[in-house]
Amino acid sequence: MQDTSPKNETPSDIRLAIRSGEVTSVTSGLAEGYVQANVVILPKALSFDFLLFCQRNPKPCPILEVIESGQFDPHLTCSDADIRYDVPLYNIYRDGTLSETCHSIEHVWNDDLVSFLIGCSFSFENALKQANIPLRHQEMNCNVPMYKTSIPTVTAGIFSGPLVVSMRPVKRSHISKAVQVTSRFPDTHGAPIHIGSPNTIGITDLGTPDYGDPVRIFDDEEPVFWACGVTPQAAALVSHPNLMITHAPGHMLITDKTDNDFSIF
Amino acid sequence: MQDTSPKNETPSDIRLAIRSGEVTSVTSGLAEGYVQANVVILPKALSFDFLLFCQRNPKPCPILEVIESGQFDPHLTCSDADIRYDVPLYNIYRDGTLSETCHSIEHVWNDDLVSFLIGCSFSFENALKQANIPLRHQEMNCNVPMYKTSIPTVTAGIFSGPLVVSMRPVKRSHISKAVQVTSRFPDTHGAPIHIGSPNTIGITDLGTPDYGDPVRIFDDEEPVFWACGVTPQAAALVSHPNLMITHAPGHMLITDKTDNDFSIF
Repeated sequence: MQDTSPKNETPSDIRLAIRSGEVTSVTSGLAEGYVQANVVILPKALSFDFLLFCQRNPKPCPILEVIESGQFDPHLTCSDADIRYDVPLYNIYRDGTLSETCHSIEHVWNDDLVSFLIGCSFSFENALKQANIPLRHQEMNCNVPMYKTSIPTVTAGIFSGPLVVSMRPVKRSHISKAVQVTSRFPDTHGAPIHIGSPNTIGITDLGTPDYGDPVRIFDDEEPVFWACGVTPQAAALVSHPNLMITHAPGHMLITDKTDNDFSIF
Repeated sequence: MQDTSPKNETPSDIRLAIRSGEVTSVTSGLAEGYVQANVVILPKALSFDFLLFCQRNPKPCPILEVIESGQFDPHLTCSDADIRYDVPLYNIYRDGTLSETCHSIEHVWNDDLVSFLIGCSFSFENALKQANIPLRHQEMNCNVPMYKTSIPTVTAGIFSGPLVVSMRPVKRSHISKAVQVTSRFPDTHGAPIHIGSPNTIGITDLGTPDYGDPVRIFDDEEPVFWACGVTPQAAALVSHPNLMITHAPGHMLITDKTDNDFSIF
């Protein structure tokens, strides 16, 4: 009998399995070592403002690739992908409201849409694990906790909003190492933006995250905060675009690029 | 008698002196330690493609700030600047041809223009000097040599063209240090893109640069090549925009940001 587990298949194999409807799950753990991307798709009229928003806020919004209008092939990061089919689950927002969740966006696709692939934290999480810095949310088998902060993003055109961060508890003796390791990956959120004292950045209760799940923090640990890829989606949504398509949380585009392709040293 | 040398004045003082017509010279050596910017101004219809070109080619085209259409104040990098007056000398291109050189662009300014400030090599040159790596072109009191390479940039919309590099000879024993030092400044071209063997990147004669002046290379040195800010200007020009305004070579915008504001570690 054929083993249908896509865990050790190539990114291309997995994208094909997603395209055919064979794989519809979250992509965490698939094609380990390969970069996965957040997806934001917007009408061309909003594309300059959104690209500028990402340029002005590179820590939460590191652009991996932009697929220009009229194209659906992310050829800079993937060999044979199609952004219309290769994400396991899409969210379609109309006028700022979630109106549909689906496995393909063929029915809403048009030549006016521009697609943005944005770095996600899976890359630096792999690097942290390789450096023997454990990830509490993985130990607890839950989602990473994410919080809206009092830190504003830099506005660009119609796009603005608060910086959203993810939090990972890190032993005080490991914090320097965690900063060093994640500094290598500026295209997947890079170094922490804040260490300790959640109040300082407007987080009043770590136990009630705005997204994801709460995690335990031990006495010898500090909460360490990284800029989060939820930021650009939230900022785009605030502008009530007539049409915006994103990946559904956890259901990312798997690219052909390895984590190390995007490390700076 | 008043000392009118602007060498030790603040960036704001110097911009004011430029705006009033008191300073019309090249800006090299002015406000040392502060970041100077290449300037490219284009009609809004070209702005998404050009921003995307810069995003796809971050080493030659590191964006420091974009001033949106209808605005002339680079408020993210300067306290009180006006892009219409604060560059000592502008080049105005019409349909891809240089048609005018002037000290102000008030007469051609309109609310459709988008201004791009792009990092320049002065920042990493300061860092090299601080690391005791001498700069031959400064020793010879001439311009840095620049070459078109056989390396293509990544196309975006109508923008494409060859990567242009600047060359500095570095002692073999200093090359590691030169890589380390300039790696700290990704927003001002970052680490070298090539070391040694000019032929490999399509440069047949170091003695005849495409821009700037040739410099002497000693036997214990290798030519070291960095991505150059001439690249985006050349790429923009190839598209024959009906209007494009740039700084004249060497006549940069002086920002309030220090070199260290843009270093990554």
